[in-house]
Amino acid sequence: MHDGLQSYKKKKFQKVMDTDISTEVLADKVMSGDRIMLSKAITLIESNARQHYQKAQELLHLLLPNICPSIRIGITGVPGAGKSTFIEEFGFSLCEKGYKVAVLAVDPSSTVSGGSILGDKTRMERLARHPNAFIRPSPSTGTLGGVHRKTRESIIACEAAGYDIIMVETVGVGQSEVIVRGMVDFFLLLAITGAGDELQGMKKGIMELADAIVVNKADGENKKLAEKTKREYNQILHFLMPATRGWETKAYTCSALYGDGIQEVWNTITLFIEKTKNNGAFTERRQSQIIEWLFAMIRERLENSFFQHNEIKQYLPFIQDAVAKETITVSNAVDALFQKYESSFENR
Amino acid sequence: MHDGLQSYKKKKFQKVMDTDISTEVLADKVMSGDRIMLSKAITLIESNARQHYQKAQELLHLLLPNICPSIRIGITGVPGAGKSTFIEEFGFSLCEKGYKVAVLAVDPSSTVSGGSILGDKTRMERLARHPNAFIRPSPSTGTLGGVHRKTRESIIACEAAGYDIIMVETVGVGQSEVIVRGMVDFFLLLAITGAGDELQGMKKGIMELADAIVVNKADGENKKLAEKTKREYNQILHFLMPATRGWETKAYTCSALYGDGIQEVWNTITLFIEKTKNNGAFTERRQSQIIEWLFAMIRERLENSFFQHNEIKQYLPFIQDAVAKETITVSNAVDALFQKYESSFENR
Repeated sequence: MHDGLQSYKKKKFQKVMDTDISTEVLADKVMSGDRIMLSKAITLIESNARQHYQKAQELLHLLLPNICPSIRIGITGVPGAGKSTFIEEFGFSLCEKGYKVAVLAVDPSSTVSGGSILGDKTRMERLARHPNAFIRPSPSTGTLGGVHRKTRESIIACEAAGYDIIMVETVGVGQSEVIVRGMVDFFLLLAITGAGDELQGMKKGIMELADAIVVNKADGENKKLAEKTKREYNQILHFLMPATRGWETKAYTCSALYGDGIQEVWNTITLFIEKTKNNGAFTERRQSQIIEWLFAMIRERLENSFFQHNEIKQYLPFIQDAVAKETITVSNAVDALFQKYESSFENR
Repeated sequence: MHDGLQSYKKKKFQKVMDTDISTEVLADKVMSGDRIMLSKAITLIESNARQHYQKAQELLHLLLPNICPSIRIGITGVPGAGKSTFIEEFGFSLCEKGYKVAVLAVDPSSTVSGGSILGDKTRMERLARHPNAFIRPSPSTGTLGGVHRKTRESIIACEAAGYDIIMVETVGVGQSEVIVRGMVDFFLLLAITGAGDELQGMKKGIMELADAIVVNKADGENKKLAEKTKREYNQILHFLMPATRGWETKAYTCSALYGDGIQEVWNTITLFIEKTKNNGAFTERRQSQIIEWLFAMIRERLENSFFQHNEIKQYLPFIQDAVAKETITVSNAVDALFQKYESSFENR
């Protein structure tokens, strides 16, 4: 990142954080639909500082009773699939229908590079200007688990602000699709033609997460190919377990550039919501998602406490080496590590 | 399980455990190839008693320097695919070639029901009688993680006893294929005809773990259908990432009943071993498997310590309920749980 921009961002961040606005006032303003205050709330949620964490938790506690019923949509796709164009077009059409649309991002690459898939302010300019839209770049620091928490809590903040359609965008890196699948009701895989090659390069199991596969760029000379790709996806989908109980995942085509097929995507999602609310799958998933999130956070905290422990950090490389060379058994290695770990608690 | 059998097994177990044979003598006898002593060693490894655990670890420590180079083959398949017949035929042909073949099992269902896929002594009778063969039913008690550890350590014991081909059998329940994939060099999926239905019922992602898919029962009237199923598998495999670097997973047919295609399976495995030893994938996998095992056991121990903690056990159901009803945030719930957990260590 550019140094000037970095220091500008830092200053801006400090300013938000130093505002002596009380948590109660912030909560009220968020719930009244104030977009600038929603931004501040999310900045607070995303902060890694300990005192901000406490304040964010208080804020969320105030916001929780006020969250509105929403549809959470996850969107993923290989780079070049046209995710921004699709989200802009799709989001704009929903805003025009009167929905309030929030766009968040989970970008695991940003945890490494410091970049962000939604960092570019010029992206989705048309959507960003719509009074019913709220666009938020991905939290750009922290572990994937941390980004995960921040995104989930940002969803809550958006819902408390009255946003009834939440889109969570991700690029297909690491575990990000699985994580996003675990926080949305409907998961959409945006694809493009060139199926054979693309499918082979596609990450294992991603098709099995999707509630719909939308082949984008079905326009001009590419239209026929897109239709063929759609058929190929449908053939493979036939052999896979559906991602959602009572719903058959199918492939569709669209042209985000020309707005073709966008309405059909929305029809599909509304049908999905209707069906899953009727058969109970919607509520089931929401409840199991939140419980899974609880357990994921417990596990993360347990592992952090262990692997960040000073003695373990020093000792683990040697143990790993001995295990790889098979000079000690794995069970012995684990015993030795836990002896060090647990004795440090007892001697506190 | 039948009561009489249970008490008989218990008595037999006690007898093995009470033998005042020293760990050193046991290790020597195992390394000399004594099958009865190998059985005793594995019984010791599988024991859940604390003093046996210590003794088993000493034993493994003595065995580790003596393990022979081996090929570890995982075998899975839906019930009815003919796994026993296949393993018996395949194992027998390898024994006849002069290999020493050990057959172990990971049976997650046995952790629940007390049953075991290899519990039936009359199974694989012909193979069991071969002087080069060693067959061991799956450890029938303990958590899946515990069974996992026991199977991995039993592999070590077999290799120290000179068994150079280790087959690990599993049924497709829970996480068992992923666990077995994580302890073998070559993973074989045994399938049968009726592909459409079968493939759809097949667990997500299992094809992507396999180094070969072998369509069994390719005999008589079923032969044509088996060939068709093979082609269908090959079509789908084309779209999947191969399980092993530098190796293309393909489908084959065989008739375990008539011994047809068994030699081809062995040719495939030897080619696989040659290729992966040449490109380094073999050693890479073995090393990463053992390190992954180490981390899996660390995680299991951390989670056991947390979730088996008295206060957590009492408190968790209420927390879970509050989280599901969204009256507290997940972060708050985690904080509250860890406050209880950590304070109990400090007050020891």
